[in-house]
Amino acid sequence: MKTVIAVDAMGGDHGPPVTVPACLDFLASHPDAELLLVGLKEPLEREIARGHSPHVARLTVILASEVVGMNEDVRTAIRTKKDSSMRVAIDLVKEGRAHACVSAGNTGALMGTAKFVLKTLPGIDRPAICAVLPTRTGQVYALDLGANADCTPEHLLQFAIMGSTLVKAVEGKENPTVGLLNIGSEEMKGNEVVKKAGELLRRSPVNFHGNVEGDDIYKGTTDVVVCDGFAGNVALKTSEGLAKMLGDFLKEEYTRGVFSRLAALVSWPVIRRFRRRVDHRRYNGAALLGLRGIVVKSHGSADRLAFATALSRAASEASHGLLERIGQEIARLNALAPAAAPGAPKVEAA
Amino acid sequence: MKTVIAVDAMGGDHGPPVTVPACLDFLASHPDAELLLVGLKEPLEREIARGHSPHVARLTVILASEVVGMNEDVRTAIRTKKDSSMRVAIDLVKEGRAHACVSAGNTGALMGTAKFVLKTLPGIDRPAICAVLPTRTGQVYALDLGANADCTPEHLLQFAIMGSTLVKAVEGKENPTVGLLNIGSEEMKGNEVVKKAGELLRRSPVNFHGNVEGDDIYKGTTDVVVCDGFAGNVALKTSEGLAKMLGDFLKEEYTRGVFSRLAALVSWPVIRRFRRRVDHRRYNGAALLGLRGIVVKSHGSADRLAFATALSRAASEASHGLLERIGQEIARLNALAPAAAPGAPKVEAA
Repeated sequence: MKTVIAVDAMGGDHGPPVTVPACLDFLASHPDAELLLVGLKEPLEREIARGHSPHVARLTVILASEVVGMNEDVRTAIRTKKDSSMRVAIDLVKEGRAHACVSAGNTGALMGTAKFVLKTLPGIDRPAICAVLPTRTGQVYALDLGANADCTPEHLLQFAIMGSTLVKAVEGKENPTVGLLNIGSEEMKGNEVVKKAGELLRRSPVNFHGNVEGDDIYKGTTDVVVCDGFAGNVALKTSEGLAKMLGDFLKEEYTRGVFSRLAALVSWPVIRRFRRRVDHRRYNGAALLGLRGIVVKSHGSADRLAFATALSRAASEASHGLLERIGQEIARLNALAPAAAPGAPKVEAA
Repeated sequence: MKTVIAVDAMGGDHGPPVTVPACLDFLASHPDAELLLVGLKEPLEREIARGHSPHVARLTVILASEVVGMNEDVRTAIRTKKDSSMRVAIDLVKEGRAHACVSAGNTGALMGTAKFVLKTLPGIDRPAICAVLPTRTGQVYALDLGANADCTPEHLLQFAIMGSTLVKAVEGKENPTVGLLNIGSEEMKGNEVVKKAGELLRRSPVNFHGNVEGDDIYKGTTDVVVCDGFAGNVALKTSEGLAKMLGDFLKEEYTRGVFSRLAALVSWPVIRRFRRRVDHRRYNGAALLGLRGIVVKSHGSADRLAFATALSRAASEASHGLLERIGQEIARLNALAPAAAPGAPKVEAA
């Protein structure tokens, strides 16, 4: 069966000049995939023609008359822009015409619209944003990275189940470890919500490693790191800020005078290898987990390579049956340990 | 008047072999300072003799018979180790024999003992940990970095006042800007505590910039960043983990084969300049703000340069009359805008 992805081609800082070439690259590397490219007629057709791709047969343009702005309020987006490229892409998932959708549009509007159109999965109270980050030993899936500023312990348990199911599904790991982001490794550390979440996780079927601290994210201590959207967003943005500052400082030092520029030239292969290892474009594409449909959010500033990475993530999540697996895990949680997880999400009839 | 600093010479991962040479360096660079070196007789006298310093006349050894372990519980430290080097150093501040104290011992025990012995300043409910971080444009003071996992909006307002007073006092900045760490710049963003803290800050005499995000820390958007101890600790530890990973990756790439090693050799002056710019040792020494005494916490793994930096911070805070200034600012808050700050700390009779 072909995997069909709906793409909000208008979203992000760059729009079609980046999303369309990325889509063509994606089709070239995914011979079993089809794309539904959603957006305004003129820019899409222009960029598709410019691409001279032999894969256009697997690409269908779906017209949308509007675009959700990068700073647009979620309510405005939902109420007044019913024919936006973002909304139409999500509708295609709702209607079963696409297995997943991808957008580089604004996170708030995307999450809000996706929740409004698709609703949450049975047993999940709140969708969460789950991204992949590089670590010393590979990569880590972290959630929630900003959708839910206030969380209950039960929400954190649900995030743990969704995150570990995602890793099982797309990475093929049998029993992924889950760490709870905290400010110390001991059980009694942290705020009230985190302490109670630790209790729930210890009694759940999740492979719970225990508390982890901020530095464990990059150590790769666990396969999944769970946190509320406030702490997760702080960790993510702080990391972005620090990486950018260090990169800029390094660049400044390597361009300070003739000798430094020579050193940069000699170091170029080394620097290129280093940059490749931590290239954020290779980690682009955050899953909006917990919805009745697969939605992947690309970074707004994504370039061609980064946007193609986000498309690949969506395809992988769809082809590995992520939604069904999350449903099964939630059911398993309730069946295996009903008494042991008093705050566990209930499974409703789907 | 000489500034007298009490030093817990036994604390930290290394103890006297690092703390004593750092103290001698500090005395050499601070001709108006005196040190009270607290610890076990034998290791202190050995390291002092080894230092051959002409400044030993300004150094007094104060004996303490015990050492608080790096993983020791705060209750154990307070109840059973009344003659520990940490406790005696804090007692010296309480007794007025020292203007400040410095320890590289464990943070929990240091904060707990300092609160128990010194108590909090009038108008301050909770002491906070305030550290200095490098930014693109200079440096930023961030608090709380881990003392208070759960905070009220009023606590965050108190942190803002203490942080901005610290910057005024030691950096000589007239009207330091304060940012509230959040997950978006708009007023309605964030969790409930942060939203209410934003309201309090907008009505306070603090020079409130508004919300800042994680990446603003390193951009240097404001002079002070205020957050609860959970988010602050996550930001700090995540930064440490990322910086370590990037440093290790760079090192690995520069030692991968002969050509890379040659590039490293050629780049050495550049790399040295870069490392100096972000050298965490130059930022060592976190203020435990809000106590009736100046207490500075050095990183446990601090080396000689880093520990000397922490001593300099303590001396600077003492000589700039930090405690009196915090007291004045709290009084000013209540006098200037009593109606405007309903949740503001009350000034008790000192």
